[in-house]
Amino acid sequence: MNRTVHVDLGERSYEVTIGPGLLAGLADRIRPLPRGSSVVVIADSTVDDLYGRRALDALAHADRPVGRIAFPAGEAHKTLATWSGLFDELFALTPAIDRDTVIVALGGGVTGDMAGFVAATALRGLRLVQVPTTLLAAVDASVGGKTAVDHPAGKNLIGAFHQPVGVIIDVETLTTLPADQLRSGLAECIKHALIRDEALLDWIDTHADALAACDSQAMVELIARNVGIKARVVADDEREAGQRAHLNAGHTIGHAIEALVGLGNMTHGQAVALGMIAENAIAVERGLLPPAEAHRLIHTCRRVGLSIAYPNLDAQAVWQVMQHDKKNRGGRVRMILPRRLGEVEIADDVTTDEVARALDALADTEETA
Amino acid sequence: MNRTVHVDLGERSYEVTIGPGLLAGLADRIRPLPRGSSVVVIADSTVDDLYGRRALDALAHADRPVGRIAFPAGEAHKTLATWSGLFDELFALTPAIDRDTVIVALGGGVTGDMAGFVAATALRGLRLVQVPTTLLAAVDASVGGKTAVDHPAGKNLIGAFHQPVGVIIDVETLTTLPADQLRSGLAECIKHALIRDEALLDWIDTHADALAACDSQAMVELIARNVGIKARVVADDEREAGQRAHLNAGHTIGHAIEALVGLGNMTHGQAVALGMIAENAIAVERGLLPPAEAHRLIHTCRRVGLSIAYPNLDAQAVWQVMQHDKKNRGGRVRMILPRRLGEVEIADDVTTDEVARALDALADTEETA
Repeated sequence: MNRTVHVDLGERSYEVTIGPGLLAGLADRIRPLPRGSSVVVIADSTVDDLYGRRALDALAHADRPVGRIAFPAGEAHKTLATWSGLFDELFALTPAIDRDTVIVALGGGVTGDMAGFVAATALRGLRLVQVPTTLLAAVDASVGGKTAVDHPAGKNLIGAFHQPVGVIIDVETLTTLPADQLRSGLAECIKHALIRDEALLDWIDTHADALAACDSQAMVELIARNVGIKARVVADDEREAGQRAHLNAGHTIGHAIEALVGLGNMTHGQAVALGMIAENAIAVERGLLPPAEAHRLIHTCRRVGLSIAYPNLDAQAVWQVMQHDKKNRGGRVRMILPRRLGEVEIADDVTTDEVARALDALADTEETA
Repeated sequence: MNRTVHVDLGERSYEVTIGPGLLAGLADRIRPLPRGSSVVVIADSTVDDLYGRRALDALAHADRPVGRIAFPAGEAHKTLATWSGLFDELFALTPAIDRDTVIVALGGGVTGDMAGFVAATALRGLRLVQVPTTLLAAVDASVGGKTAVDHPAGKNLIGAFHQPVGVIIDVETLTTLPADQLRSGLAECIKHALIRDEALLDWIDTHADALAACDSQAMVELIARNVGIKARVVADDEREAGQRAHLNAGHTIGHAIEALVGLGNMTHGQAVALGMIAENAIAVERGLLPPAEAHRLIHTCRRVGLSIAYPNLDAQAVWQVMQHDKKNRGGRVRMILPRRLGEVEIADDVTTDEVARALDALADTEETA
């Protein structure tokens, strides 16, 4: 019951393979890579404890030297300092790494970002295999080639585009995921529905219980469908010059909420869900989106257990954070607004007042939805 | 008397413009770039003192916000720590940088590498304009898109390929270059002759005095010719998968000598010159290169004032450093050996004994040349 999604990026194309138990077959998936030197698995301490040993055992069949590097778990460690420490360990490995070394990023989004950025910059670029172990990383971070670390001035400010040579998603690794992390990933799936695939909302509603139970078959189908959406968007716009910006739906206000609430106090997906609801309210107010469609999306958020309201957000503070978003150009705040579920457009003219009213709406969504 | 060399890299193509006084016209060369935000000039303290003010005055005509960041001069500062500090300054600029910001790397190879690596990774990639102010950077580092910083485990171990959108070489900035730095650049020109253009050796012999005096016309012609050679090699092999390795002629032994002598105690080009002479001795011993051609190259090295001998190198130590070269694959030392002046091949089977004899030869080159 494995599924494979092709990500079409010319000479940088690769495949995403999704199925249960794929981690055990990791060696077979590394082996076909062109002539080989060592494989180095990078994971955070949590995932290293859970799956590090299993990954190394699996790779023992690859007939290559295998290294293993762990770093402290948590977004707070997604810094230049941690990243720099990974190099100290990487360059101390025996045998020494070379340009044929393969980096395996085993873990969630932080690991994909940081190990991916190591792969992007060690010896000016090593092959990278992404093995996401969270739903969010599986449907979002593992496709698109974005790698980065945070800087005190903002999230993901330092990084590179570096496409993996392959992505392997073992849905069994999702069974250890806390419920809020699962919901966080589902929020990004709802975002994919919002920008490209209205019918996906019905599918999620129907399969919400199976997904909450981490049913393998439902999970494989969910991930394959969402990876497919993201892969098409990225293939059309690898370097984020145009419509790839659609993937930022919900993220303009969502990122600001995430920053204000404080990293670690709200999952990324939960913030994006609130961001989508608020941004959709702006689209409704502009007469762009029918109110019923905004409610339709809120319904699915609620169905999968996401909070749909957040009171007492300071509109001024939100606006200020939004102005420092690196997606802005020429000093204007950029927002992705839906014309209908499944179709969005880019707005560069959102005003402070619109944001303030959207945040007001967010305060009582609970009652109106 | 400006010359322009086109570097053909598909959608990443760019032009190298060479001439006297180009720094004063920097604004005109920035202005044609697609819609614009700020320009940030990064230079080391030495070049910032010499040309920082002039660059900023020139950019004042560009109708954009202009920032200026300096860092301590010297290869010893080409570290992750210095690079990280550049981000602290970059993200503190007002107005805030965005994805349309242009980074100008004003200086020698260290600046090109480090500011280039900032451009490669700030906001996942900003436009970069290289303005090399040393001959070495002009003929070598400014073309090819290599950016990097050093790690205690080795030089240039952390970096990325990031092509500039343009390279501007003002030969008047070379007049402030110390004589040994000028010779260092000439060594890379001799290397270009070795791998692609035998006739260039005659040209350098003929113009050696004009070059030593930094005559504008001779310098423009020298740089245009050498940039042309490098551009063709890089265009054929952007990511260094094949024949771009030819550019490493002289560098296998040269880098090892440079490391053993200690950074700052010998210019890069001087080490490469010694490396070429030693590696050519191996090619002669193998019956690959006629001895007269090896002497021909030594003659030009001597003509431009490069040392052609270096006694007392420890062959074991050289071999050990060479084994950690990041250009190696599968644990074998890779060396570029000439078949004749202007044509080289890649050898993966060089032995310790060959290197030892080549270093012996290097000890008395003075007498035999």
